[in-house]
Amino acid sequence: MKNKDVFNEKLKYSELFSFYGNLLTDRQRDVFQLYCDQDLSLSEISADLSISRQAVHDAIHRSQQLLGDYEKKLGFCANFQKREQCRTLIKRELNRLDDVIKDKHDKVVKEYIDNVMRLIDNME
Amino acid sequence: MKNKDVFNEKLKYSELFSFYGNLLTDRQRDVFQLYCDQDLSLSEISADLSISRQAVHDAIHRSQQLLGDYEKKLGFCANFQKREQCRTLIKRELNRLDDVIKDKHDKVVKEYIDNVMRLIDNME
Repeated sequence: MKNKDVFNEKLKYSELFSFYGNLLTDRQRDVFQLYCDQDLSLSEISADLSISRQAVHDAIHRSQQLLGDYEKKLGFCANFQKREQCRTLIKRELNRLDDVIKDKHDKVVKEYIDNVMRLIDNME
Repeated sequence: MKNKDVFNEKLKYSELFSFYGNLLTDRQRDVFQLYCDQDLSLSEISADLSISRQAVHDAIHRSQQLLGDYEKKLGFCANFQKREQCRTLIKRELNRLDDVIKDKHDKVVKEYIDNVMRLIDNME
């Protein structure tokens, strides 16, 4: 794989890990965090955790399989991404609305818009 | 357990099932759907699927354990409920905003509000 592909794959699994990481074993989680989040090489992880390079490779491979499988079955990561797109659209509409209102200096209306914006931002 | 408690427990697991049901085995899913969604008794499920009453009991018990465990580790059902509360608050604010705007007959502003409302409704 090219560097860019490796980067994209790490990014993809790092996202899936943030959703389903708690379903992995402690060991798988430890290895995966060093691999994806801290971007260590297999040899570095092997030295760090005092396990063989093969065991590191297997843990990463198995974790990727599991994370991909969970997403395929549950789709929470894809749903989250759709929600983020939706949030962006909503905020765009609210900003437009805000612009229209601004000219009218309507305080009450402005407050409602601010409330909605705050709620949207805090929505999980 | 009282009837009301049984009902509430079925409701709770039925919700969890809608989130994590795809992580159960086919057999567990079949049994659980008959138990929670169609509200059949253990004996009825046993007859329906041609398996022992004990096997039905075990499948339900194991499924409940798994679903509870997935929610404890992932919390997607709780997040969804928080999101629903948030959606209700947002819609309340938007309706108030709509009421204020209505008096002013501002078509452009009304359109923005309708857009936000539609996006909120379609948000997963």
